[in-house]
Amino acid sequence: MRKVFFLSDFGLADPYVGIVKAVMEGIAPGISIVDLAHEVPPQDVRRAAYGLYESVPFLPKGSVVLAVVDPGVGSARRAVVVVGERFYVAPDNGLLSLAFMRDPPKAAYLIDEQAFTQMPSATFHARDVFGPAAARLALGVDPSRFGQPIELEELVRLPVTFEQGLHGEILTFDRFGNAITNLMGPLPEPVEFALVAGRTLPFARTYGDVYPGEPVVYLGSAGLVEIAVREGNAREALGLVEGMEVVLYRRQSGGAP
Amino acid sequence: MRKVFFLSDFGLADPYVGIVKAVMEGIAPGISIVDLAHEVPPQDVRRAAYGLYESVPFLPKGSVVLAVVDPGVGSARRAVVVVGERFYVAPDNGLLSLAFMRDPPKAAYLIDEQAFTQMPSATFHARDVFGPAAARLALGVDPSRFGQPIELEELVRLPVTFEQGLHGEILTFDRFGNAITNLMGPLPEPVEFALVAGRTLPFARTYGDVYPGEPVVYLGSAGLVEIAVREGNAREALGLVEGMEVVLYRRQSGGAP
Amino acid sequence: MRKVFFLSDFGLADPYVGIVKAVMEGIAPGISIVDLAHEVPPQDVRRAAYGLYESVPFLPKGSVVLAVVDPGVGSARRAVVVVGERFYVAPDNGLLSLAFMRDPPKAAYLIDEQAFTQMPSATFHARDVFGPAAARLALGVDPSRFGQPIELEELVRLPVTFEQGLHGEILTFDRFGNAITNLMGPLPEPVEFALVAGRTLPFARTYGDVYPGEPVVYLGSAGLVEIAVREGNAREALGLVEGMEVVLYRRQSGGAP
Repeated sequence: MRKVFFLSDFGLADPYVGIVKAVMEGIAPGISIVDLAHEVPPQDVRRAAYGLYESVPFLPKGSVVLAVVDPGVGSARRAVVVVGERFYVAPDNGLLSLAFMRDPPKAAYLIDEQAFTQMPSATFHARDVFGPAAARLALGVDPSRFGQPIELEELVRLPVTFEQGLHGEILTFDRFGNAITNLMGPLPEPVEFALVAGRTLPFARTYGDVYPGEPVVYLGSAGLVEIAVREGNAREALGLVEGMEVVLYRRQSGGAP
Repeated sequence: MRKVFFLSDFGLADPYVGIVKAVMEGIAPGISIVDLAHEVPPQDVRRAAYGLYESVPFLPKGSVVLAVVDPGVGSARRAVVVVGERFYVAPDNGLLSLAFMRDPPKAAYLIDEQAFTQMPSATFHARDVFGPAAARLALGVDPSRFGQPIELEELVRLPVTFEQGLHGEILTFDRFGNAITNLMGPLPEPVEFALVAGRTLPFARTYGDVYPGEPVVYLGSAGLVEIAVREGNAREALGLVEGMEVVLYRRQSGGAP
Repeated sequence: MRKVFFLSDFGLADPYVGIVKAVMEGIAPGISIVDLAHEVPPQDVRRAAYGLYESVPFLPKGSVVLAVVDPGVGSARRAVVVVGERFYVAPDNGLLSLAFMRDPPKAAYLIDEQAFTQMPSATFHARDVFGPAAARLALGVDPSRFGQPIELEELVRLPVTFEQGLHGEILTFDRFGNAITNLMGPLPEPVEFALVAGRTLPFARTYGDVYPGEPVVYLGSAGLVEIAVREGNAREALGLVEGMEVVLYRRQSGGAP
């Protein structure tokens, strides 16, 4: 049976994750479900999309990715299955679009909600639609059996572009308060500094290259430029917010940033 | 072996959940434990009880439910096993009482704490009493072997009544800030509005029926009336608290709410 | 295959824990990984070390403990495998040192990072070094194959001493706001009171011995003296902080504390 990787913003204060797992186990007894993340901030599609981008290279080919961050549940947004090197089940709201950079879609299908339950609730589609679809994919059901095919260019994408350049912006944050930018390595030229939020910060290989409490910009483990404070929280310490401009540069002799 | 579903307020900042699982695995090697929820707000028996109410229809018959939210640990409160279509292990503090509406108890037994460990701690009964009891139930031990039978009407129940009516109150909240009421569908008559916290809110099928940022009242996925703000947090935005009155009504021609 | 117990400060808002599990599953298909704790406050090595101290007696001998709270990632801190009755994989920053009181180390080895991946990232060693090492230990790889042996006295230890005495200090806190001290039972003499933060608090067997809302000092489930407020949060209610002095005493006839 295909392994399932499950990401959501359901948290663990409520039993939503456990209910979805119980439903999936009922459809596919013995199913193996690995939690990717469940404390994504409520309805933060962008952060979840980045989490999937980070994860994809480490998820085995042929596995199933169940991703539910779904502020539009109950509206007209579509439920989809997308096929790349893996099988993705998600609302069609951009959640998968950053993962597509690393696992380009080959086919996509609507999920016909009536095929999964006689009366899906209006508000808990992970239980009634997405989870059951993921469980059936795990069993080997062909994705074309879920509903009508969709043109790949119709899939909703976040307005985010990754740049192999020197001007970018803050995409999102992680739990440690590190800022993740849309600037992608390898960088086009050697860089020594970054200008962020009106401050000049050193560019280095890692946190360990600065003193505790000091800020640093570096190429992170997902291949994107990040901004951190060693042993601290850059988001809070530097007052960073999503969308802030980030400029990388190499100090010229005699020049001023 | 019976599958175990585990709910607690232990959180994941401390190793309490993992310790309980390690102890259970020691008693029942290969045991399968599914997490229902562990970040229930500390000692919030009411929220946990609602979480169990939500979960029960999706938990396979014959499975074991281990539920530990236990502000009275170390006091005289009893540890019990309750048998319905599933096996429940919990402190007898009302935690199970909402689940009983969906899975009525047929028998209940005290857990004789000395039967489980030679010297249970005074403060960590999930490790020393409840977890070991659940592991033995998973192995198929008969619940009557845990201790003396208890009359079902002696089990502690929360002072909560579910109403198929139009006047109710806020029972608890979920992580998204949605308020869950004690009003149960199907409603006795068509409803168009709700009066909550001095405001008149539209009653609709789901969030998708209002604009982002707007409040809405609807029949939620657990079959109870809920109050939400689309893509927002109703608890914060509307200043809702537990116990607030909720009135549903249908606007009469020429009438005022 | 050896079972793995995994503790980190990665949280569940990001997919770090899931990525590490996916990598481990790739190395050791079918590996069994139990979560000990992942919401340890960011970079709080002391709290994580206490979590391991609490857990160790309940983890089967021969199992693998993967512990990653690593503020020094990317600096010169060493990655180590330590062998006691269990196998430990962690950064050498003191994280394991309280566990050593309950499972004394017999041998320790550096992890040669190049042995695990051709180019480890500078910032995500759980994925690139620690997780792969734990997976190989689970498979039965001999720890001496990870790198050079280290003298046991070279392992970094936290400046924490557990005392079987009457004068100690607050070591850390748990999610419920209970304070854990470095005073270890059994106590050298009968105790009736504790002096903490300028207040005299009753010493009792458990919370149940005081009224709800009242503070109490007692010997906790890990064998250390703790300070709690029944059905409350002692850290907040009493203004407790790490390092505060705690004095236990027995009221003498006619004496004043």
